[in-house]
Amino acid sequence: MLSEVAIKPLDDGQILVKNAFLSVDPAMRGWIADAPNYSEQVALGSVMRAVATGYVVESRHPAFQPGDAVLGWFGWQNYAVVGTAAVLRKISETELSLSLGLLGYSGATAYLALTTIGQPLAGETVVVSTAAGSVGSAAGQIAHILGCRTIGLTGGPAKVEACRTDFGYDHALDYQASDWTADLADLCVDGVNVYFDNTCGTISDVVNRHLALRARVIVCGTAAIDRWDPWPEGPRRERQLLVRRARMEDFVIFDHEEKVEAAIDQLRIWHRAGTLRSREDIVDGIEACPDAIAAVYRGENIGKRLIRLK
Amino acid sequence: MLSEVAIKPLDDGQILVKNAFLSVDPAMRGWIADAPNYSEQVALGSVMRAVATGYVVESRHPAFQPGDAVLGWFGWQNYAVVGTAAVLRKISETELSLSLGLLGYSGATAYLALTTIGQPLAGETVVVSTAAGSVGSAAGQIAHILGCRTIGLTGGPAKVEACRTDFGYDHALDYQASDWTADLADLCVDGVNVYFDNTCGTISDVVNRHLALRARVIVCGTAAIDRWDPWPEGPRRERQLLVRRARMEDFVIFDHEEKVEAAIDQLRIWHRAGTLRSREDIVDGIEACPDAIAAVYRGENIGKRLIRLK
Repeated sequence: MLSEVAIKPLDDGQILVKNAFLSVDPAMRGWIADAPNYSEQVALGSVMRAVATGYVVESRHPAFQPGDAVLGWFGWQNYAVVGTAAVLRKISETELSLSLGLLGYSGATAYLALTTIGQPLAGETVVVSTAAGSVGSAAGQIAHILGCRTIGLTGGPAKVEACRTDFGYDHALDYQASDWTADLADLCVDGVNVYFDNTCGTISDVVNRHLALRARVIVCGTAAIDRWDPWPEGPRRERQLLVRRARMEDFVIFDHEEKVEAAIDQLRIWHRAGTLRSREDIVDGIEACPDAIAAVYRGENIGKRLIRLK
Repeated sequence: MLSEVAIKPLDDGQILVKNAFLSVDPAMRGWIADAPNYSEQVALGSVMRAVATGYVVESRHPAFQPGDAVLGWFGWQNYAVVGTAAVLRKISETELSLSLGLLGYSGATAYLALTTIGQPLAGETVVVSTAAGSVGSAAGQIAHILGCRTIGLTGGPAKVEACRTDFGYDHALDYQASDWTADLADLCVDGVNVYFDNTCGTISDVVNRHLALRARVIVCGTAAIDRWDPWPEGPRRERQLLVRRARMEDFVIFDHEEKVEAAIDQLRIWHRAGTLRSREDIVDGIEACPDAIAAVYRGENIGKRLIRLK
């Protein structure tokens, strides 16, 4: 529901931010769901929680001046009046959109989940689901930079093409095609060393049958499952974890805030060197927000989905 | 099938062992199954693979003398002719049975799985399935020694009683009783920090709903599941791993051989101090072997099930 309200006058210590870009994240479904999650539920009728970038318009805090470009929890709105606790950092004007994607939580999630949990070695096979998405496309590219053989799983010919050309996957499979499971089996005769999973559904059930000895499964997202109450059923994993001596571990970026800045510094170096590419999928106007997230779940985005405000 | 064959004459480097105790292990079902496992399948018609203890009767290897007590892969048989690769170590005569249980792979599995994967902190809640079994009873006691609050899950009043008295669990629940799930919920309002699981079935499905933030689930055995082909279905775990920031990891003792001796040294200290108890469930005669393992799956044993030979 879109509503128009007057901008409140600032209290001491607050700033007024005019948002430039709003982030659209798969995690948002979890944030609004009436189910246990890693963060508090966003209440009906309140502003949708979202990371955004924009410019300081007015400041009653000495560390911020009008014109500063900032990144923070400014929500899905045109203007935000916030205390500095909501500000994540000042950013370069040239990174207004990148700071929400490759050089933001998406890129940092891909980098930190891959390096701390996946720990891929050069020559190992890394499979990524939602391979053309914001996190997935970064994960695949980073694994490639680290010397791994990368296989991306994505839906539809356009995203398969993006995986191959923009994101440099060694192989990209279309899970909407009937023969992808046979192709995956052929590509993974020596097993999957790292599975970077953002889906947790029937696609993962296929990948999980090909785990190599001592495989690492990164549970980074569960986009393939709409509802978790009651818990959906799927193949039991324990025996294979035991037989393959595999590990399955979650990753939530908010547990790793202290490492995010260094991760982004590394990603920026690769991005400037041209070895790590960003692709953005931008729609205009605050009124586009609700469908923008629905479209992410329909799998329509390639790269980072953003809302651009005038 | 029991068969009688002549003992082969020794080659150079071999020893003849007269077995005293044969180990009966839940893992044996996996070793003989025609399904992928962490070790080669035991062929039909061959001697059942088993750890055993006994005495050297004849030796054509300079490191072994008749009368030495030894532990090794001697199989379910009265006599074994083996090379020294099959010998795990010489043992004390006073530990002929203990070396197959608390001061053997069972105890070392409990200790190493708990300390390397579970990493319980004093005050944390540790839940153990097959709590009165060989591995489970050691795991519960070790967790208690480490200062944890321990909850054992086991089947039937006799084993519940053994958990409380012999194995010192703070709480023991009978999963055959209708109210155990409510009792577990009451006992775990602050969550389960470590779940030491040897079952992987509907019991685990209940426990897994109570994981604390950053819980560790040790996949040590899958005794509750008879067949893995096709993979049985159960509740999907990924979302909860993500929301609870939990980790689920397998443990197979044969990956940790280099730490087994030190683990047993530690266990022996606790055992001699009386803080760590062993309970053995001994049946006599080689002819008891097949039913002895079946009885373990029926949940009839309390503590370590062994075959004693004359």
